[in-house]
Amino acid sequence: MKTLYLDDAATTKVRKEVVKEMEKYYFEDYGNPSSRHEMGERARRAVDDAREKLSREINAKPWELIFTSGVTEANNLALQGLARVSKRKKIIISAIEHAAIMETCSYLEKRGYKIIKIPVNKEGLLRLNILEREIDNGTLLVSVMHVNNVLGTMQDLKAIGEICKRKGVLFHTDASQSFGKLDINVKNMNIDLLSASSHKIGGPKGCGFLYVREGINISPLIFGGGQERGLRGGTENVPAIVGFSMALELMKKVNKEKIRKIRDKLIIELEKIGKINGSKTDRIYNNIHLSISGIEADTLVAFLSRHEVYVSTGSACESKREKEDHVLKAIGLNDEEIRGSIRITVNEDISEKDVSYIVNEIRRDVGKLR
Amino acid sequence: MKTLYLDDAATTKVRKEVVKEMEKYYFEDYGNPSSRHEMGERARRAVDDAREKLSREINAKPWELIFTSGVTEANNLALQGLARVSKRKKIIISAIEHAAIMETCSYLEKRGYKIIKIPVNKEGLLRLNILEREIDNGTLLVSVMHVNNVLGTMQDLKAIGEICKRKGVLFHTDASQSFGKLDINVKNMNIDLLSASSHKIGGPKGCGFLYVREGINISPLIFGGGQERGLRGGTENVPAIVGFSMALELMKKVNKEKIRKIRDKLIIELEKIGKINGSKTDRIYNNIHLSISGIEADTLVAFLSRHEVYVSTGSACESKREKEDHVLKAIGLNDEEIRGSIRITVNEDISEKDVSYIVNEIRRDVGKLR
Repeated sequence: MKTLYLDDAATTKVRKEVVKEMEKYYFEDYGNPSSRHEMGERARRAVDDAREKLSREINAKPWELIFTSGVTEANNLALQGLARVSKRKKIIISAIEHAAIMETCSYLEKRGYKIIKIPVNKEGLLRLNILEREIDNGTLLVSVMHVNNVLGTMQDLKAIGEICKRKGVLFHTDASQSFGKLDINVKNMNIDLLSASSHKIGGPKGCGFLYVREGINISPLIFGGGQERGLRGGTENVPAIVGFSMALELMKKVNKEKIRKIRDKLIIELEKIGKINGSKTDRIYNNIHLSISGIEADTLVAFLSRHEVYVSTGSACESKREKEDHVLKAIGLNDEEIRGSIRITVNEDISEKDVSYIVNEIRRDVGKLR
Repeated sequence: MKTLYLDDAATTKVRKEVVKEMEKYYFEDYGNPSSRHEMGERARRAVDDAREKLSREINAKPWELIFTSGVTEANNLALQGLARVSKRKKIIISAIEHAAIMETCSYLEKRGYKIIKIPVNKEGLLRLNILEREIDNGTLLVSVMHVNNVLGTMQDLKAIGEICKRKGVLFHTDASQSFGKLDINVKNMNIDLLSASSHKIGGPKGCGFLYVREGINISPLIFGGGQERGLRGGTENVPAIVGFSMALELMKKVNKEKIRKIRDKLIIELEKIGKINGSKTDRIYNNIHLSISGIEADTLVAFLSRHEVYVSTGSACESKREKEDHVLKAIGLNDEEIRGSIRITVNEDISEKDVSYIVNEIRRDVGKLR
């Protein structure tokens, strides 16, 4: 029995090289970057070095990155942090955002903000004409995720950025599923704020950043000892920040075309079992989303899990099932399709030989369930 | 040349056993606790187990702990989270709180809250009569740190808790410097909220918790996928949480009386070089705070650092010097005493034989500076 972890969109295994790098900052250069002695200085330099490498990936300047405890905090900082300093009361998001955006918006809505959710088409792509129509003088920002965590659909950030620039509103994107995997250029794409995650690319959990374009005023969410240019208090998580940077370096070397080919072979086989949801073309290379009629996906996930095949029912970040259904409802799936849907994310540990094994496991368990 | 790290109050070396335990969750049980498959379940059980162990330490129930990215976030969650749900507009703190409390209060002050800072005596102990007098019907909470990060002074939590209970206001304590080191019983001491840190006791950075007594209503600061009973969004930092719990276990086995004896020997020798600040009796076992006349502490720290003796000028968490001076001003030190003050924190790696070495290093460098 081989362990087949097909849930990278939920979280990834940490790379050996990443932990090896982190150990230096657990055991040797473990100082507090705010300490004035050499032990603190070395930690400070490690953070600076990681900041430089991570910022380069999106063509940002190092000082435009604010390290956070992850992408959820980064998303909260973007939305609440801007809301705290602006008088504008309208926030525009897509109908398929992650709970970190959705729930933050629900909170802001209760505090008097107007939240507009822009619909997507059947493939999960944002209706740009509706977005453009909704932006007005009272709009604080547009927040649209890059790659959807459930469907893998990739939005056209450049097109959205152009609309936002033309209309004079800020543009934030949650890039949890794409940072390190797809090309992002915040300057060319007119992205004002961007959230990125470490644990989706083989780095440790508990680390991420918010990029905030130079010149944009934002309030901290977490106040403290002046870290991150006064925008995020708390001792910097030095080992995790270093690990995040190392994970990016390794992720850039991953052969994405090889993963795409295996994913495509899987799609061809899985189309015989169920219906593939989302876009055929505008989809990240590692995602499959599938509806299987006449079964409960929750039970299928549990059955597969017994044979160490780990897939997901939608978004793992959302513990309550209803919360993730909004994405599938937004693309027009019916209740049966939603109930029978699973997400598979493929990584470099999966080989071509695993394709038939995975398909057979799914086919057998689906057979038992029907 | 021996490395003498005397800055545990800023941050600690991570224990080997802690990292070993964490590795299991980097490489094997690396699932997302929200995932429904067995890989996620194992991560969920690890978090639950750590929660149980950590809560027991302060006599809380497991579900009263909210895991955060550290004590700074926990302090922010306590203050901002309560402010968001209450109509009361007065917050009472001590004059010697950490920046995480001070800066959060400055923010709340700008939003219309009244912040009262209770003075301390020359030893750094809170003036309880003034505290009692200041509590009124409009008071949201009292927040007083357990052990001061600069002076090591221990407040009488039981006495403060009694006053708060009698007066009917909430009591929060920042226990960053004491959790795992001193006995804390939230029930006996009438503590309603408590912040604790992992990286001050040999655990990883980027992890902490806020204890919130059952029945107290608090708003999240970071919204997301419903983690931590909906009170803190974001994928749980499984390895760090497990590491935090393991660090507590190890910290409890540390011979604190042995550390106290070495610290006391150091005090006797250092009194020949400068003046010890803070309380002689109500002081945590590992802290020394010393003012040396006629020198700049910043330069002394740098000189000692060259010989791998790492001490601190006050609080490392506060990058701007003015921010930490408030503690020393509050106990009545003059400018020269503040400028020439250093903090030493002793841990189990320091032996009796190191005492004369440390004292000689300090004496020599002080001689060069005068």
